[in-house]
Amino acid sequence: MIDKRSPVPIYYQIEEHIKKMIDTHQLKPGDAIPSERELTEAFQVSRMTVRQAITDLVNAGLLIRKKGKGTFVAEPKIEQPLQGLTSFTEDMQRRGMKAGAKILRFSKIPSDESIAQKLDIRTGAAIYEIKRIRFADAEPMALERTYLPAELVQGLTADIFEQSLYAYIENVLHYRIAHADQVIEATTAGHDEIEHLNMAPGSPVLRIHRLTFLENGQPLEWVDSAYRGDRYKFVISLKRD
Amino acid sequence: MIDKRSPVPIYYQIEEHIKKMIDTHQLKPGDAIPSERELTEAFQVSRMTVRQAITDLVNAGLLIRKKGKGTFVAEPKIEQPLQGLTSFTEDMQRRGMKAGAKILRFSKIPSDESIAQKLDIRTGAAIYEIKRIRFADAEPMALERTYLPAELVQGLTADIFEQSLYAYIENVLHYRIAHADQVIEATTAGHDEIEHLNMAPGSPVLRIHRLTFLENGQPLEWVDSAYRGDRYKFVISLKRD
Repeated sequence: MIDKRSPVPIYYQIEEHIKKMIDTHQLKPGDAIPSERELTEAFQVSRMTVRQAITDLVNAGLLIRKKGKGTFVAEPKIEQPLQGLTSFTEDMQRRGMKAGAKILRFSKIPSDESIAQKLDIRTGAAIYEIKRIRFADAEPMALERTYLPAELVQGLTADIFEQSLYAYIENVLHYRIAHADQVIEATTAGHDEIEHLNMAPGSPVLRIHRLTFLENGQPLEWVDSAYRGDRYKFVISLKRD
Repeated sequence: MIDKRSPVPIYYQIEEHIKKMIDTHQLKPGDAIPSERELTEAFQVSRMTVRQAITDLVNAGLLIRKKGKGTFVAEPKIEQPLQGLTSFTEDMQRRGMKAGAKILRFSKIPSDESIAQKLDIRTGAAIYEIKRIRFADAEPMALERTYLPAELVQGLTADIFEQSLYAYIENVLHYRIAHADQVIEATTAGHDEIEHLNMAPGSPVLRIHRLTFLENGQPLEWVDSAYRGDRYKFVISLKRD
């Protein structure tokens, strides 16, 4: 299995070996992998080489280290399609999970210059600012900050954000949501994510910015969110022109 | 600017303040931000609070710490559109940058079970395996591993991978590339990225898996790539159904 004469580094061969065991379901989510000592003996390599391979797989999100318990195969990530504009609640429902939200802040404040520019309103015009944790079943998945022009969504209340904002916008206010510009970045967890998403410092985060527009071209919301990198991935089908 | 009676944590207010200065171009890419001591005095807060704010902005990729030199505003990330299936070379050309590649490995090997499944060939059938660093102008941006069924792309040579593979596939072999399924994840840098992309341990990485298909439905390539999280972001426009 391990070819010591190969130009491919040994730690990388071990990674590939473990990846394949996961790929082919010989190792399943939640399974403990063999200890460093066992792997060292099985592959006849140094402990440092084994550790390097495991660290890489932990970094890549395929394995999880639990203090004092060992190293385990990570749960498969939730796949978020990038094909159409859907809300978190809709995404969760579609895959049979229960969407939840915990509101950390709900306030009506004057917009600063930066948010005003994005929402195409004048600086100082009232906006709603909502900060909430999004849950899939009972698991915290994302931390989300949403900003909406107050004039557009008068009478907004905190409890709407415990359910689906999009359902409220479309079914109660009768606005038509048209499209959104979305940016996807990889970062590491900040203090807020560490605190509210139970993440370890240094954990990877998918950071999403979304500017959503109504059919008449008016910006509806600016969303700044952080999804747990260990639990979430995006999938998209791309067509060649 | 800083409201000590606000329920919003002070470190977060400082973050927002610095973000706004970047957003409104009062601080430009490459600019040094004031020292921790200066910020401590300007905001009349503890040094720890200032440090917390700066660490968060470094984690988010907005600031960069340079040892012994200070903290600077990061260069804007390269925006990669997710709208259509394009090659790295085409993307770079579109934005007026020079695409480059350094080949680290080029070999014809028997496929293992996992790659064979993806490429829909029998296990053991020959594949090309290419590992290369992708450059934008002279900057290393991504580490990419590509696997192609050898039968499909006979006579492939290493120098093709120093240019555009897609150009070769379409213009020389006259295949029609149709679409690709792509997965986007956030991870942290592994040993390979740290070595070849000059990344610091713990740096965020955008990891992309792509399975590309020809018009006749046959898989053309399986690509496993890691893009520098500090230099790259994806943008997409989503339509509401």
